Amino acid sequence: RLIYELLFQIIRKALTEEKQVSTKTSAADLVTETDHFVENLIISVLKEKFPSHRFIAEESTAAGSKCVLTDSPTWIIDPVDGTCNFVHRFPTVAVSIGFAVNKELEFGVIYHCTEERLYTGRRGQGAFCNDKRLQVSKETDISKALILTEIGPKRDPATLKLFLGNIERLLKAQAHGVRVIGSSTLALCHLASGAADAYYQFGLHCWDLAAATVIIREAGGTVIDTSGGPLDLMSCRVVAAGTREMAMFIAQEIQTIHYRRDDEN
Amino acid sequence: RLIYELLFQIIRKALTEEKQVSTKTSAADLVTETDHFVENLIISVLKEKFPSHRFIAEESTAAGSKCVLTDSPTWIIDPVDGTCNFVHRFPTVAVSIGFAVNKELEFGVIYHCTEERLYTGRRGQGAFCNDKRLQVSKETDISKALILTEIGPKRDPATLKLFLGNIERLLKAQAHGVRVIGSSTLALCHLASGAADAYYQFGLHCWDLAAATVIIREAGGTVIDTSGGPLDLMSCRVVAAGTREMAMFIAQEIQTIHYRRDDEN
Repeated sequence: RLIYELLFQIIRKALTEEKQVSTKTSAADLVTETDHFVENLIISVLKEKFPSHRFIAEESTAAGSKCVLTDSPTWIIDPVDGTCNFVHRFPTVAVSIGFAVNKELEFGVIYHCTEERLYTGRRGQGAFCNDKRLQVSKETDISKALILTEIGPKRDPATLKLFLGNIERLLKAQAHGVRVIGSSTLALCHLASGAADAYYQFGLHCWDLAAATVIIREAGGTVIDTSGGPLDLMSCRVVAAGTREMAMFIAQEIQTIHYRRDDEN
Repeated sequence: RLIYELLFQIIRKALTEEKQVSTKTSAADLVTETDHFVENLIISVLKEKFPSHRFIAEESTAAGSKCVLTDSPTWIIDPVDGTCNFVHRFPTVAVSIGFAVNKELEFGVIYHCTEERLYTGRRGQGAFCNDKRLQVSKETDISKALILTEIGPKRDPATLKLFLGNIERLLKAQAHGVRVIGSSTLALCHLASGAADAYYQFGLHCWDLAAATVIIREAGGTVIDTSGGPLDLMSCRVVAAGTREMAMFIAQEIQTIHYRRDDEN
């Protein structure tokens, strides 16, 4: 808990400061000094406690570290999810830390920095938000569903057509609404808490998904690949929903947007 | 302040309950008992204090009251903004109360129910969130902008094409991102606080705009019609931005989606 207090203070403070912003894969793929600082802090604290563990983390990967999930105990870290929000001081920003052993996700922790909400999930032991048990929505009917998604980093015309076409398909299927809040992990936390019925995205990463996947499953939800098959953490795509029926409906409805895998060189 | 405490308790409590949901103009245009209850409560409290004042309010209008702004002192009320969020317990829900005299907006109050944030603005006296002064973004460059919008109640294929086409235009103009949070008034509050650079929408109503317009202007921002001309509170369309340059850019970029005026019979 101490580390969360510290992270919280760092990010809250950084939210009020002018930021040095750089771009990564596209003009919309942003990174700040805080991303690096928070990632280094988390890894150094965990390395001291668990010297044999492995780490997959957003900024280390961007800097060239290999992003391969082995059987070793592995921490999967997004230091600042919602970096574009963070840059704009739009108050939807989170830290996400997942942990896997033998390629199985064991637990996940997501911290909503501006609202001091701590989401946690541990395999077989339920999911919680600040100690309140989480329970997904039981909705199976798209015409009563609130759907969440995110734009993703690619902004070429073909990708935008597919991204907007998928929203159009779901609204034509009479979904109540589609929301885009700018943080995949916090959108997935809303799903876990039953505040939305489904989430899908192309172009997110294993560090956006690892912690949230445990939390959603422990809240009773389904997390699958956009093909309808089992989730592949490295495939950069996901459908999550409160019910299997809703997840399968979305998977069948949406068109694939191609992104490179996280473990592709 | 007492009335806010009361409203807060009512809406917080209602957020945890099963809701009786009805539809209005379309399958996506929802209303609950809480909307009616909160609206009646606000109006009855204000009527007792100001018996000669007029009222324009969302559910009274839906029930057939005329929606015409005269020179009389007039309260313009949205009891639950973000009703679809409210139905799903998606925690982005607000109460909005604006006040106009001689058709001039004098002050506005918006209450973010789940986060206990009170936004206020009074003509000539600044805008505040829980007593912290608000200041809009000074960004003029679309390629550094975070833009907010909302879907609107009409969901026919032609409207959806225009709605999604406008997002496509702004993303092609390299906006950092577009967010859709499901509450016009809270999106406008984010704009007032500098957390986003622009907001535009077709199909919102005078009760979504009245309070937020005072707050944004007092935070240094621009609120205009989507044609680029002066705001018409009854026209069901708006562009708001931190800077006039940004507002004009958006107004020129987006295509019009036609909605009936609020004061049309």
